[in-house]
Amino acid sequence: MPKKDLENDEGTLDRLKHLGKTLKRQLGDPDSDNLTIETKVRSRSNVHYDEDEERLELGESYSERKFLNISHARKFMQTTLVANKTKELVESGRTASIREVYYQLKHSVPGLDENTFEDQDESNNVVVDIETATGAIREDLHLFAEPKGTLFGPVVINDSGDSIDCMNMGTSGLSIPSIVDHYEFEECEADFLLVVETAAMVNRLVEEDFHKEQNAIILGTGGQPARGARRLINIMHNRLDLPVYVFTDGDPWGYYIYSVLKSGSMSLAFQSDRLATPDAKLIGMTMEDIEEYGLEHVTEDLKGKPEDGGGPTKDYKRIHDVMDYEWMQTEQWQKQFQKMLDKGVRVEQQALAANSLEFVANDYLPQKIENENFLD
Amino acid sequence: MPKKDLENDEGTLDRLKHLGKTLKRQLGDPDSDNLTIETKVRSRSNVHYDEDEERLELGESYSERKFLNISHARKFMQTTLVANKTKELVESGRTASIREVYYQLKHSVPGLDENTFEDQDESNNVVVDIETATGAIREDLHLFAEPKGTLFGPVVINDSGDSIDCMNMGTSGLSIPSIVDHYEFEECEADFLLVVETAAMVNRLVEEDFHKEQNAIILGTGGQPARGARRLINIMHNRLDLPVYVFTDGDPWGYYIYSVLKSGSMSLAFQSDRLATPDAKLIGMTMEDIEEYGLEHVTEDLKGKPEDGGGPTKDYKRIHDVMDYEWMQTEQWQKQFQKMLDKGVRVEQQALAANSLEFVANDYLPQKIENENFLD
Repeated sequence: MPKKDLENDEGTLDRLKHLGKTLKRQLGDPDSDNLTIETKVRSRSNVHYDEDEERLELGESYSERKFLNISHARKFMQTTLVANKTKELVESGRTASIREVYYQLKHSVPGLDENTFEDQDESNNVVVDIETATGAIREDLHLFAEPKGTLFGPVVINDSGDSIDCMNMGTSGLSIPSIVDHYEFEECEADFLLVVETAAMVNRLVEEDFHKEQNAIILGTGGQPARGARRLINIMHNRLDLPVYVFTDGDPWGYYIYSVLKSGSMSLAFQSDRLATPDAKLIGMTMEDIEEYGLEHVTEDLKGKPEDGGGPTKDYKRIHDVMDYEWMQTEQWQKQFQKMLDKGVRVEQQALAANSLEFVANDYLPQKIENENFLD
Repeated sequence: MPKKDLENDEGTLDRLKHLGKTLKRQLGDPDSDNLTIETKVRSRSNVHYDEDEERLELGESYSERKFLNISHARKFMQTTLVANKTKELVESGRTASIREVYYQLKHSVPGLDENTFEDQDESNNVVVDIETATGAIREDLHLFAEPKGTLFGPVVINDSGDSIDCMNMGTSGLSIPSIVDHYEFEECEADFLLVVETAAMVNRLVEEDFHKEQNAIILGTGGQPARGARRLINIMHNRLDLPVYVFTDGDPWGYYIYSVLKSGSMSLAFQSDRLATPDAKLIGMTMEDIEEYGLEHVTEDLKGKPEDGGGPTKDYKRIHDVMDYEWMQTEQWQKQFQKMLDKGVRVEQQALAANSLEFVANDYLPQKIENENFLD
């Protein structure tokens, strides 16, 4: 493969070098009584919803790790080892899994009866530290995660020199890797991007030629979207100027998927500008669809209804969690959740098959788009 | 999409019609005191290892479902409904998920206060019944499951009229669907097929251009292989005459993946001829690799060692389970498991990164292949 040069590489190297220089300066300074790295606090207390940007952002709380504290000395060694390894990856244009990084760095320290790392949890934690301290995400550091998701439709992607026509992928589709920043879009004829929660619904739409008939890119997330899929949706929206419609089950889990795609997630709030797509709209399933399309006999009862004295669990608990999020405080979303609670049911995307297998592709989705019948 | 005509369609229709005719004949026969379908017993007691074919097969025990038994009447209705729906799918050249089949068939029976199905478990069980009664697997019945797995390498696949060059897939790869029987291989220049357990190792090999340098197809299963991947390995071995090398972690879970690919699994023993590939060889990781490649410092301790009085759990239990299988009773496999027990460790494929990131692609795998250093 050609070297993997990412758009952010220079910035990432600057960030890593800055981290190293800060430590070096402190080491050489006779007045400095400690070695410190500062990282933004990433817990929920420091996450807020930015109303202008319409996405989650990290606040300004910082925490310090002091390395001359004996209990932190080991961690200091580990942090410099991993930071150095990621710098090597970025410079050489290669990528690695966090597991490979662990194995590459695990060795016993000469002269000491001590290993650099005992298990992978140690190196994983250090990776998160470096992400937070530098503001570079894992993918910037050339570290990859599990790939997840599939893509079909009228777009030609250049991936590492290979030109891939995603309209010509049969029923198989392009597998979405965990790093997509190097993708170049050679051609795109699509009118919109449809993000689909379940692999089975992707299969249905492809079998019905939805991508061809509607001139649409279909991106299947296979449940909760992986980071690669989130980044790809963001990139395609911004670079290709494509409207993004999200198609999930009508339940709190599906609506949370939409929320993450639109506004970002708490654990990656410091990267919402790259992973969230505030313009994304929910195309379905909604509680209104149940009557509109005669699906009353194929809904499912919500689980975890509060019993006497106890609080809600399962679906009911999840509804309350999601409807309480700051960024869900709009009239239409509150109404949607309230309707779900009142009806006591959820409705899956595949329930549309109760009408006919082709109904979703030929009627449901085209009608929603024509009437601009979305939630956002 | 063009109609999905599978190689087996005619046979599948014959099987479904045979089932229907049997029931109809019994209904019309005044001497018949019951409606019965016969299915092969699929529990472990009826699974045996066929030494000539080198794979698991179903034995000759049958069980009967009698439908005039009141407790079976509901199931009878359900069986005919699902059998009829799958016949419709096969005839129309369409596919559906088992969830869509459930939603398509769920309705209240006119004149009765009774639903055809209460939940999807009911229809799923009926699908298994029909598979066993007819001997046609789910994919033959045009029912699809979750897709899983990725493919790269010098093969051109025609999928539903689209010609896909799998050598031209960048770092993304072809997503393997759950039904692959319609694949046609237009060109294949590969010397062998390498099946890889983890997605991260696939990523490593693709980044190192292993598929190009070694002229190999790389098929990642993403853990335990899905049915589509198993069928595709079987097809590529048989139709393209490709040697199959399986590359897993050196632990009982990895070796079980190999065992399933090679000999079949108990739950699908009646379809081993289509899902198993007895010629497949294990290329690694082996216990011998640990010394051979200096990996002593990157092994992991096995978990679940038997304590005083208790039996083994976790890794140790799994080792005993797998080494007790009839088809694992060869000298070299018993030696391999015994060595694992003696050392008390497992070794992951990614541990090879301890040498260098490119070591696996440039040294480890090519050496194994050149020296024909396999387990089988």
